[in-house]
Amino acid sequence: MTLDAPRTFDERRKDTLTRFETDVDVWVSTADGTGVPCLVPLSFLWDGETFLLSTARGNPTARNLDANGRARLAFGGTRDVVLVEGTSTTVEVADLGDGEGDAFAAKTGFEPRDIRSSYPYFRITPVWIQAWREVNEIAGRDLMKDGRWLG
Amino acid sequence: MTLDAPRTFDERRKDTLTRFETDVDVWVSTADGTGVPCLVPLSFLWDGETFLLSTARGNPTARNLDANGRARLAFGGTRDVVLVEGTSTTVEVADLGDGEGDAFAAKTGFEPRDIRSSYPYFRITPVWIQAWREVNEIAGRDLMKDGRWLG
Repeated sequence: MTLDAPRTFDERRKDTLTRFETDVDVWVSTADGTGVPCLVPLSFLWDGETFLLSTARGNPTARNLDANGRARLAFGGTRDVVLVEGTSTTVEVADLGDGEGDAFAAKTGFEPRDIRSSYPYFRITPVWIQAWREVNEIAGRDLMKDGRWLG
Repeated sequence: MTLDAPRTFDERRKDTLTRFETDVDVWVSTADGTGVPCLVPLSFLWDGETFLLSTARGNPTARNLDANGRARLAFGGTRDVVLVEGTSTTVEVADLGDGEGDAFAAKTGFEPRDIRSSYPYFRITPVWIQAWREVNEIAGRDLMKDGRWLG
């Protein structure tokens, strides 16, 4: 297999932001306090700085995020990786920004506010972002560290 | 969007086993004991009953699996989901089965035994398997529970 030339930082950031803006679902990994991982696909909305998700309050993902506010997000396939580590805050419906709930529903086709059981939102702020395709992109895969873009 | 008819149990199991046999990488989710999740893509080998993985002993994934033996694996995309919850045991190189290390290297193109730092293997035994594509496949998505195929 011939590998494509590794992308520059700017190319990776552009590809990554395109994915944040256009992908509908993301793999969301969370953990409880006893070493039990959870991993589910969820729809999301990217506002340029944070990801907005929603899941039922009783689900392990919601309980984990409420308990410790830690998430890892995986976008794309295992050979076009975008990995995000982030911190989460719970956002009740009443605390959504202007138009934010509508924007979430329009993008995802999923309207948590219409569901009778409680579906809070969660805002994930990225702290660490990596992007790589093949082994020749492992070097330089860090795009953000400690919440700051490196480029 | 028109959804395809939901697959039967047998169709889902067949698709799932095909994925186990032919996919090269899988998203591996683990957790430490304080609520910190880890999520990385790793190559794997399916032997019909368990998944064999390998990662550096110092990586969070290896440390988490060593500590608590819990993993979630996600195969495929977020709209063709195969999710596996499993238990892990660490397998040192000397304890690999006959030809197992060779089969792993042949399938994945990755030879942990050639790496100077320590790359143990991990054998993941599935306990719970789910497969679904769209919302009309949520019902019936459980294929295995408590380590037993339901069909």
